[in-house]
Amino acid sequence: MFSAIQSRYKRFQISKSPQLNLVWGFFLYTLMGFLLLSIPLFHRTDVAFLDNLFISTSAISTTGLVTISIFDSYNFFGQFIIMILIQLGGIGYMTLTTYYLLFTTKRITRWHQKIIGAEFTMPATIQIKDFIKSVVYFTLVMEFLGTISFYIAFHQEGITGLKGMWFSLFHSVSSFCTAGSSLFNDSFESFSENTLINWTISILAIAGSLGFIVITDVWYRIRGKSKAITFTSKIIIYGFIILLGIGSLLFYFTEPLVKASEHRLMEAFFQSMTSMTTVGFNTVPIGSLSLPLLLLTIFLMYIGASPSGTAGGMKITTLTAMVAILKSRLLGQKKITFLKRTIPLERLFVATSTFILYTSMIFLFSFLLSFTEESSFDKILFEVASALGTVGLSTGITADLSEVGKSLIILLMFLGRVGVLTFGFALLMRMKKQDLKLKSEDLAV
Amino acid sequence: MFSAIQSRYKRFQISKSPQLNLVWGFFLYTLMGFLLLSIPLFHRTDVAFLDNLFISTSAISTTGLVTISIFDSYNFFGQFIIMILIQLGGIGYMTLTTYYLLFTTKRITRWHQKIIGAEFTMPATIQIKDFIKSVVYFTLVMEFLGTISFYIAFHQEGITGLKGMWFSLFHSVSSFCTAGSSLFNDSFESFSENTLINWTISILAIAGSLGFIVITDVWYRIRGKSKAITFTSKIIIYGFIILLGIGSLLFYFTEPLVKASEHRLMEAFFQSMTSMTTVGFNTVPIGSLSLPLLLLTIFLMYIGASPSGTAGGMKITTLTAMVAILKSRLLGQKKITFLKRTIPLERLFVATSTFILYTSMIFLFSFLLSFTEESSFDKILFEVASALGTVGLSTGITADLSEVGKSLIILLMFLGRVGVLTFGFALLMRMKKQDLKLKSEDLAV
Ligand SMILES: [K+]
Ligand SMILES: [K+]
Repeated sequence: MFSAIQSRYKRFQISKSPQLNLVWGFFLYTLMGFLLLSIPLFHRTDVAFLDNLFISTSAISTTGLVTISIFDSYNFFGQFIIMILIQLGGIGYMTLTTYYLLFTTKRITRWHQKIIGAEFTMPATIQIKDFIKSVVYFTLVMEFLGTISFYIAFHQEGITGLKGMWFSLFHSVSSFCTAGSSLFNDSFESFSENTLINWTISILAIAGSLGFIVITDVWYRIRGKSKAITFTSKIIIYGFIILLGIGSLLFYFTEPLVKASEHRLMEAFFQSMTSMTTVGFNTVPIGSLSLPLLLLTIFLMYIGASPSGTAGGMKITTLTAMVAILKSRLLGQKKITFLKRTIPLERLFVATSTFILYTSMIFLFSFLLSFTEESSFDKILFEVASALGTVGLSTGITADLSEVGKSLIILLMFLGRVGVLTFGFALLMRMKKQDLKLKSEDLAV
Repeated sequence: MFSAIQSRYKRFQISKSPQLNLVWGFFLYTLMGFLLLSIPLFHRTDVAFLDNLFISTSAISTTGLVTISIFDSYNFFGQFIIMILIQLGGIGYMTLTTYYLLFTTKRITRWHQKIIGAEFTMPATIQIKDFIKSVVYFTLVMEFLGTISFYIAFHQEGITGLKGMWFSLFHSVSSFCTAGSSLFNDSFESFSENTLINWTISILAIAGSLGFIVITDVWYRIRGKSKAITFTSKIIIYGFIILLGIGSLLFYFTEPLVKASEHRLMEAFFQSMTSMTTVGFNTVPIGSLSLPLLLLTIFLMYIGASPSGTAGGMKITTLTAMVAILKSRLLGQKKITFLKRTIPLERLFVATSTFILYTSMIFLFSFLLSFTEESSFDKILFEVASALGTVGLSTGITADLSEVGKSLIILLMFLGRVGVLTFGFALLMRMKKQDLKLKSEDLAV
């Protein structure tokens, strides 16, 4: 299995247009998933053409938006196919982003090792095979532990036996891959008071969304194997904690729905966590949120989390680069710095391009959907931010979308997953001999 | 009069913190206007404290949003004060932006003159006094011609005599300064079929919003006094025409309100023109626009027009810089280019900073207003984009805003006018000896 993936990566490395390869790969997986899900043998009820395509894209892209109920529409085998699609999408994305991060920071790493010692904890000599192995093991171990934890929790809730085991496995995979697809029709709204379920989802989703590099980085640091975590990991972790904290506090103090709950803190935390990790499960009904908190959720989905994990969104690193540009210009600094480190010019342009493109896409698609849908603008904007960020939260308009609307959301989920990565690779491939200046500290975006 | 302004500019030039000077200046004018408008002698009816402050800020900032009817609330003298505030705000902004443009491109101009001949049509030796004189003459001549044109048009509509003269003068000043304040309670909705009124407003607003430099640039070119217009002017004019064209076409073909009209083309053109020049008069009821076209209007208000005139918004030059970054990165160019010219790094960072700040402000204030207002998100976003862009169009929620809401909009109008300029100056002052590389073509942002 590993050698197959390895040879694929080798081909990927030497191919002239890896980004085209990538688009094709994701497209073929989506098509395969769609064809499998179209087989009536896997259905409980009739499922329309466009809905099968929607569910397949939603699973592969680990978004989790649904136009129909997964549990009511597909039998066990259909659900199993969906889980496999999620797993493929999740591992695929995790390995690709990790690879991207390693590849783009390689030169900097070498320089670090030579000049100031290995601050970047991933050995530069790491083999592609070893690294894929590590990512896959990491995924399987986390999902295994998650399944056990879910099983205990579901047992408490009266979901036992084979059903309990199946539900535990499905939601563990869906959580770690930040896919947000659920076998419950109201996501986790019925379990908002179950502490174990809340923690299980949160830990899996945070681990999955921060990604292999950040987690191992922290792990090495904790076990004393490295002196400090890398600049990129530091930015991601700090940014994640700060945004998660602000989000939770705002939900805790200002959302009427959360304020009325007995599990106020847990709901506030979960709602921020689910938006940022882009896992997309929810314990409060999104359609009933007040406007300000709906906007906050859009903002958190828009940012997302780490560039090294399974999360979508514009990424914390891009946000950091934007803050750095603004701060440095206002202070009249000659170079763009953050936390006393200079960010290389090349990175800044990649970040700026990502910011412009990501923001324009959200507004372009909201504009297009405003022609085809009857919904209010806040609901449309929410749906678009959720699809492009591969989050999967919804105010409830997904099932009622027009056919054109559904098609636009399918396109957005695909772009949210493949586009962002392809765009990164495309920019990267062009870098070639460009000036990643020696004295700069690299920030992956 | 000129020497007074001249000495003010000299003090401005030598002052250590011109941007603070600027904020204070605008603040004092607003305060003065507010105090004058608070005198009951100038009222027809009682006007609340906050409404006087709102109207004063709206006039000085040439926004034109109103919480109360200007005609019903203030008598002739009150209205006259408002016109003077508009004129001060308009000329003040026009001279400051022109000065900024001349100042920031001076070095490039000198270089041009030495190396490739004077492509930039403003003589580098131009005197501050001469330049202010030119701007003021330009303004007065345009407003005089506008008044005559308005008088003929209003005469057709049965508004004659002293009232006709007063209304002509007021709306001519308000049009050229892109202030959008009107003595009619429904702006120009009653005159949507009057061709002369539509043309008069459009020509005045386009001249005012493009600004002195762009207009003279084109004028010199037409009269054969220069071989080509500057890169900056070219970008502004092309961008303006392209966006105006796209906007008009979309309104013409997709807005039900416009499609039902007998003056379809004129309404489509006027609606795009009023958003981009940020004059803010309207001939169709904004509150009745369909969602897609409301969003389009928000986009056009967000962009605005030229950095050298009285218009607000993020400016076409900033948009161009963003497009240039995206295009150049995607094509893998080493330098950021547009129309085969390299844009200096410093400019790119100013543009990026403007883009980030302007976009964040719109979302921050929309978020804040979503807490204090009952309106739907599209209406709130529209109001915020209109206030920050100093446009003055509204879906009709202005009068119903809460006191906190009104205060936030006052702050936004002030920031939209002063903040943008101050921010530009602040960045500029920091530039000092930074690398405006010789081979780069400068694009003012
Ligand atoms: K998701
Ligand atoms: K205006």
